[in-house]
Amino acid sequence: MTRSIGVCYYPEHWPEEIWAEDAARMAEAGIKWVRIAEFAWSRMEPEEGTYDLDWLDRAVDTLGAAGLKIVMCTPTATPPRWMGTKHPDMYAVDAQGRPRGFGSRRHYDFAHHGYREDCARITAKLAERYGKNPHVAAWQTDNEYACHDTTVSYSPVALVQFRDWLARKYQSPQALNRAWGNVFWSMEYASFDEIALPNLTVTEPNPAHVMDFRRFASDQVAEFNKVQTDILRRHTDAPLIHNYMGFEISFDHFKVGADLDVASWDSYPIGFLSQKVQASDAHKIHHLRTGDPDLQGFHHDLYRAVGRGRWWVMEQQPGPVNWAPWNPAPLAGMPRLWAWEAFAHGAEVVSYFRWRQAPFAQEQMHAGLLRPDSAPAPALAEATQVAAEIAQLGEDAGCAKGQAAIVFDYASAWAWETQPQGRDFSYYQIVFDLYRGLRRLGIDVDILPPDTGALGDYKLALVPAMFTLPDSLKAAITAHEGIVLVGPRTNSKTPDFAIPTPLPPDLAGLDCTVARVESLPPSATVSLHGGGHFKRWFEELESADVLLKTEDGMPAVVGGNLRYLAGWPDDAACHHILSDAAKAAGIVTETLPDGLRRRDTQGHRIWFNYNPAPVTHRGLTIDGCGVHIEKL
Amino acid sequence: MTRSIGVCYYPEHWPEEIWAEDAARMAEAGIKWVRIAEFAWSRMEPEEGTYDLDWLDRAVDTLGAAGLKIVMCTPTATPPRWMGTKHPDMYAVDAQGRPRGFGSRRHYDFAHHGYREDCARITAKLAERYGKNPHVAAWQTDNEYACHDTTVSYSPVALVQFRDWLARKYQSPQALNRAWGNVFWSMEYASFDEIALPNLTVTEPNPAHVMDFRRFASDQVAEFNKVQTDILRRHTDAPLIHNYMGFEISFDHFKVGADLDVASWDSYPIGFLSQKVQASDAHKIHHLRTGDPDLQGFHHDLYRAVGRGRWWVMEQQPGPVNWAPWNPAPLAGMPRLWAWEAFAHGAEVVSYFRWRQAPFAQEQMHAGLLRPDSAPAPALAEATQVAAEIAQLGEDAGCAKGQAAIVFDYASAWAWETQPQGRDFSYYQIVFDLYRGLRRLGIDVDILPPDTGALGDYKLALVPAMFTLPDSLKAAITAHEGIVLVGPRTNSKTPDFAIPTPLPPDLAGLDCTVARVESLPPSATVSLHGGGHFKRWFEELESADVLLKTEDGMPAVVGGNLRYLAGWPDDAACHHILSDAAKAAGIVTETLPDGLRRRDTQGHRIWFNYNPAPVTHRGLTIDGCGVHIEKL
Amino acid sequence: MTRSIGVCYYPEHWPEEIWAEDAARMAEAGIKWVRIAEFAWSRMEPEEGTYDLDWLDRAVDTLGAAGLKIVMCTPTATPPRWMGTKHPDMYAVDAQGRPRGFGSRRHYDFAHHGYREDCARITAKLAERYGKNPHVAAWQTDNEYACHDTTVSYSPVALVQFRDWLARKYQSPQALNRAWGNVFWSMEYASFDEIALPNLTVTEPNPAHVMDFRRFASDQVAEFNKVQTDILRRHTDAPLIHNYMGFEISFDHFKVGADLDVASWDSYPIGFLSQKVQASDAHKIHHLRTGDPDLQGFHHDLYRAVGRGRWWVMEQQPGPVNWAPWNPAPLAGMPRLWAWEAFAHGAEVVSYFRWRQAPFAQEQMHAGLLRPDSAPAPALAEATQVAAEIAQLGEDAGCAKGQAAIVFDYASAWAWETQPQGRDFSYYQIVFDLYRGLRRLGIDVDILPPDTGALGDYKLALVPAMFTLPDSLKAAITAHEGIVLVGPRTNSKTPDFAIPTPLPPDLAGLDCTVARVESLPPSATVSLHGGGHFKRWFEELESADVLLKTEDGMPAVVGGNLRYLAGWPDDAACHHILSDAAKAAGIVTETLPDGLRRRDTQGHRIWFNYNPAPVTHRGLTIDGCGVHIEKL
Repeated sequence: MTRSIGVCYYPEHWPEEIWAEDAARMAEAGIKWVRIAEFAWSRMEPEEGTYDLDWLDRAVDTLGAAGLKIVMCTPTATPPRWMGTKHPDMYAVDAQGRPRGFGSRRHYDFAHHGYREDCARITAKLAERYGKNPHVAAWQTDNEYACHDTTVSYSPVALVQFRDWLARKYQSPQALNRAWGNVFWSMEYASFDEIALPNLTVTEPNPAHVMDFRRFASDQVAEFNKVQTDILRRHTDAPLIHNYMGFEISFDHFKVGADLDVASWDSYPIGFLSQKVQASDAHKIHHLRTGDPDLQGFHHDLYRAVGRGRWWVMEQQPGPVNWAPWNPAPLAGMPRLWAWEAFAHGAEVVSYFRWRQAPFAQEQMHAGLLRPDSAPAPALAEATQVAAEIAQLGEDAGCAKGQAAIVFDYASAWAWETQPQGRDFSYYQIVFDLYRGLRRLGIDVDILPPDTGALGDYKLALVPAMFTLPDSLKAAITAHEGIVLVGPRTNSKTPDFAIPTPLPPDLAGLDCTVARVESLPPSATVSLHGGGHFKRWFEELESADVLLKTEDGMPAVVGGNLRYLAGWPDDAACHHILSDAAKAAGIVTETLPDGLRRRDTQGHRIWFNYNPAPVTHRGLTIDGCGVHIEKL
Repeated sequence: MTRSIGVCYYPEHWPEEIWAEDAARMAEAGIKWVRIAEFAWSRMEPEEGTYDLDWLDRAVDTLGAAGLKIVMCTPTATPPRWMGTKHPDMYAVDAQGRPRGFGSRRHYDFAHHGYREDCARITAKLAERYGKNPHVAAWQTDNEYACHDTTVSYSPVALVQFRDWLARKYQSPQALNRAWGNVFWSMEYASFDEIALPNLTVTEPNPAHVMDFRRFASDQVAEFNKVQTDILRRHTDAPLIHNYMGFEISFDHFKVGADLDVASWDSYPIGFLSQKVQASDAHKIHHLRTGDPDLQGFHHDLYRAVGRGRWWVMEQQPGPVNWAPWNPAPLAGMPRLWAWEAFAHGAEVVSYFRWRQAPFAQEQMHAGLLRPDSAPAPALAEATQVAAEIAQLGEDAGCAKGQAAIVFDYASAWAWETQPQGRDFSYYQIVFDLYRGLRRLGIDVDILPPDTGALGDYKLALVPAMFTLPDSLKAAITAHEGIVLVGPRTNSKTPDFAIPTPLPPDLAGLDCTVARVESLPPSATVSLHGGGHFKRWFEELESADVLLKTEDGMPAVVGGNLRYLAGWPDDAACHHILSDAAKAAGIVTETLPDGLRRRDTQGHRIWFNYNPAPVTHRGLTIDGCGVHIEKL
Repeated sequence: MTRSIGVCYYPEHWPEEIWAEDAARMAEAGIKWVRIAEFAWSRMEPEEGTYDLDWLDRAVDTLGAAGLKIVMCTPTATPPRWMGTKHPDMYAVDAQGRPRGFGSRRHYDFAHHGYREDCARITAKLAERYGKNPHVAAWQTDNEYACHDTTVSYSPVALVQFRDWLARKYQSPQALNRAWGNVFWSMEYASFDEIALPNLTVTEPNPAHVMDFRRFASDQVAEFNKVQTDILRRHTDAPLIHNYMGFEISFDHFKVGADLDVASWDSYPIGFLSQKVQASDAHKIHHLRTGDPDLQGFHHDLYRAVGRGRWWVMEQQPGPVNWAPWNPAPLAGMPRLWAWEAFAHGAEVVSYFRWRQAPFAQEQMHAGLLRPDSAPAPALAEATQVAAEIAQLGEDAGCAKGQAAIVFDYASAWAWETQPQGRDFSYYQIVFDLYRGLRRLGIDVDILPPDTGALGDYKLALVPAMFTLPDSLKAAITAHEGIVLVGPRTNSKTPDFAIPTPLPPDLAGLDCTVARVESLPPSATVSLHGGGHFKRWFEELESADVLLKTEDGMPAVVGGNLRYLAGWPDDAACHHILSDAAKAAGIVTETLPDGLRRRDTQGHRIWFNYNPAPVTHRGLTIDGCGVHIEKL
């Protein structure tokens, strides 16, 4: 596997006279890939049907001439102003019923078929022109689907499509009424045209209604993307990529990824920690300028699964950004560390966003590898160093297979957003907490999709909080030879969002019934025998096979090789529950110091110190923000 | 008085084959009453004018055959979907101007006369069919009026009705202008048709405008209810009931109750404590799984007054619910304790909600007496135990008359929501704090309506924070022989929401003038001589008769038998101010341990331990979550 | 200079029979000025074109006969209800798209030209009638422009005017696209009619778009005001005044002030401290009933600049108000102290709001000099005392010139609201923090407008956080002989809201480049050598001339006489950075005890003790809430 460094570049932002020098400086830094064009529709097609791609030809030529490989993007995340005149109803509508208009980006509704046709047209135009261009070595569709909360739209257009989607799924309103349980509260429909979108109801809408709407919305993203990939495939053999956003769970990435060759994601460790992660203030301050030590790894492993093994970081934070509540600068070393961590987890390319800080418009406070005055920003030297180190290290067969697997299911995130039952219940967070627990024990992790039919030879597999188990996964779990830890909430609903009978988890070979569930406020936790607590969520289990009890003598973990977890474990509880599971699975664990992590590739063990200060572990001292590479 | 246990049941949710077994199990548990039909309109009238009540006949027959008495409900809280097609403007509108559409429940505007006619029609249909049915022993109108903030609607329909209401009240716009003080800020109207609803103004609207709108909105609820009771009266002699919601003060329950025979309320102690009560975190955690020790009693006493002595708990929480921010499970014993506490306060029936947990739709996470798989949930055994204990204890003449009275006035809650003057001023909460103070002293309390013309032989009467005193109550207060404690804020406005001259409280026989008022942030309190503080609210009084002073020497309580309270007392201040008042009134008090309460019936003294652990008081030890019944 | 006491009076609120007695009591208290008529349009013109000013004639006569000078107001802040029928689109629209309707005040859009014409008409009517009236000695336009967030409106009317404003500014959409950097995200416009208002976009709009909209909105206020002043000038020689609101930065007061003779502001120290100031809870509680010790002074100095030396307090808080989250009462002495502080800072008139507390409508809980029952409220005696003290002290040539100057720029407040980059960055607050730092050192301050062409002979001048430096100010800074302290963020943008090259601050004679900026959450601060911290904001500077370093060795202050500040200093950092600057400037400083402040007039040094308890400083003891006047 070849590892490379890339960068994002916007030729249309700069005078043409400096393109060549920019390209030369990129090449000099060891950059191999340059991504262009993803917001340039108003320059490609200034008015409808009038194209101007000559400037893009020249940009491709100039960059290509410097030896750079190009990621060409479709510009569909930013339809020009005239598009809104053509399709006045193309804007998404928020949950309050307000159209989300022109003036920034992502101002379109995935369900608008007229806009999809215009996207097909510009995609075809670019594909015809650059599909065989020797410099264009990859393609990106759109930009950060779902970013700015754009997956779900409550527009009239979405309503029409949703009704059709329901009609296709249920065939008759009576079938829908039965599936949703609409007899409750007299919510029965006589026709699909009576169904509204599930917003602005008096109190909460039927969760089955919401869940279908979330599935519908996710499907729109996949359909929207497929319009473009179908066209691109006809014109190019280069890999097709989309750049997903961190922490974005509003659509099924596995479904979108099925039409693409490579997954990529946009990694902003510092902004994400401050804005998205549930963690203590002390943790957030300690990692203020490094980012969370597990957050990037989790995404790397997740997107490796989405890309079926092939994945990139398409945008790597190089310095302060502009969009978090506060925007501190990374410590020296972090832009290098983040790149090496991505490579350790199997990334083919790490591409910094962006080449030069734009001095104008919305992202003028977002750092680049160059300052607005073209002087090098601190990250340029680090990127250059990484490029040199890659070359020095040589080829590697990619990241090692993980010892443990976690099943990740986007639909479960929608389900528990729809019905959290406790204010702070988050599918993403409980999965992440368990992931962190494994990583602190030095266990490498692979993520598996929910439709996986086998848990392979993983000695340990986790299936936490999964809304409903497909038959294939259910069979895989009960057939698995290793340790499988499921729960809490796993398989607690039918696909129609009802509580099944027999009660959950209903797994062959596991004597366990969830008799009752509780959600708990932050200051009420359940103490576990041997230390740690359940927080937020606790289930009363009926089982004869109790592996761990609460301090009050209630079952906390039950079963044998197939075992069930009765609550949401805090860090200490994760430590001993996962240690026990790993021991039972025959995995050798190694408790890592705070902020120190490691990942094995097929040839190396790479260490990352997310602490500002040096850490010594088993005789090895690693600098603050440092990387250490050992040959295996 | 006969005490009974009941349950809420939804035959339309279950296969008809299991109705008979359900009925048999209810009877076996000692359940006497079963409430049905209140959300089943779409099954009763699937399309306009097409009725299907055969299934309901069979349900009534099946339940009746098992010896159960039926509470038949009108289904008007959940109009079917076709109703919205018939009356597109029937939905309420929120303060932001958004219609509150179909897809949950309570999706109607009380002021919509077209919808009222359809409600009359279905009510007549049911009344004709079941009015003389021997199994139908009571009727419930609608369900939880006002729940989900549905009393106030800013709809075009409400606007039309509000203008008419104003025209009837004021006769001329000039009279309205004078009453509201519209000369202020040039707000004068030349015609009633110029008046808008008091939302979406630039800054706050005239409080007199808001107050009239709140009165209007409350009147709509009473009118809406009377449409149904007028019809039911023609067809049945069974008692008419509505199930009010806890903590609901948006309409005048005394007015609605005047058209009914029995008041009932829906008691969810654990959800209410977490969501509605102002209390310390420590208090909330201590009572996380028991509920607040005074909250149920307060509602019991309030609804006893609303029902003019006759009242039920129509829905009693049996386990975790689904609607609070977090939803823990009650401790073992609490479902029994809550029932006994209701009986002690005079309830005729305590009806658990619901028989079997529904596995589908909005309330699938709301526990019942049965689990979704029909196995018993923990509360079933407790309900059964209560039924047996009732039988064992035999008849009782009902709860004893309280030693103290508190006047409760819904309009005052609207007034201080309209003009809190301090962010956390709440009529409900200050009344409740004083109620708690009395209960901690072992004093039984009766609630009186605001139009009471006499304070009877209560040795102690409290009239806190009452917006304006009707002449009848003013006369009663000044004529009363016992101790009357009024204030703060009592009688501080005219009915037109203006400050009267002479300044408040303006009570004959009380030398007291409120010269100035202050609202205070949480960290600024006023220390009282002898302990405790005023919080949130403090009034500078002019009086020669000072009974208690602040640490700074300002009057805190003034007067004699008729006395005035200058601020909002915290727990410690309540203790000594109310102790003094009780002593002056000749009431023997007994300070109860935290969480222990008692209530006298005419034959028994019943103790309730709201603590998880046992409590010993004067030689008597009561288990955690326990009930103790002494013969008097 | 003559100092006087005034009062605000609403004859239309009271029976005509008591006007004469009110006037006599005012005169007796030593009140010289009375402001009338500013909300009385519905009484002046009850229906369109039908005027009734006879009552106002009689009010003027009655007040004038008592020897009072009248401030006559235009009533345009409260258009009568019929105006909305005439101009249905005259209401402003909030950022959510909702019209802000009739029913309170300020219910108009500054950009509505039809409404402006009606304002011109009523202004002319009043000017013609009272322009030469001997009792009318001053005029006020409208009331509290911008209060209740009314400067910015997202109405269709504003949109039309904004497009015209842009067309005049940019002449071509291409020029606008270049200026705003609309190539970013394909935001380019082909015509001015394609441009929308910058609300309800998917993510944040272009800051250049927002900034122009803020400038436009500010211009509307100035234009609106000028309509009235142009008319008034034709009919009167009396000074024209507007009463600005404290903490109001949404329009450029210097621009509005240019058309007026005197600035005035409405000073509510207690409400402002609780609602507007960023300060610790301890500080807020300590000053709960006194107000912040620097807040009034800052506004006094600011409005003295806005009035080009002539200014009043038009509304002075006399007791509890009705609009803050909580509304405590001022301590005895404060209404006097506040008046004396205003006089010390150069006020000509301090006018208490209001004469008698109105018992009706929105402000019924707002204290006056009289209670609603016409008895004196506590502030009446203090106002009377101040009037007597003024007479005793005699004339004074006004406040002394400050030793230091701060440039204050309204546009910078808009800029950093548009692009805070850190959630709590506030232009107002950083300027105020530095002002407080100077005042604690006993330094008197003058405020300068941003278009100042010279820094005069100020030994020390501060130019903090100024968005962009006009050439005139840039020249003044680099030419100044004294110490000039600029930064952070100063001159960091071009007028088009882009980052300039060379990078900021780009000041001749100052070796300093801002290489990178960070915003920081509250718990992350930057320690400074010698004590104190930067909070919220920190810039990495390149400079060879480092005057102060952070604990980590980064530059904190650089330069020489012209120096740059790298962050937002906390109180301790302000103390030593400003002490150093003052020392370098040759200013003798005197660190004042907490809550004690002083201000020099040309004849006296006046001390103010904002503490509830007495303070002793250099042998001088000043009572709690006391004033001490020394002859210089």
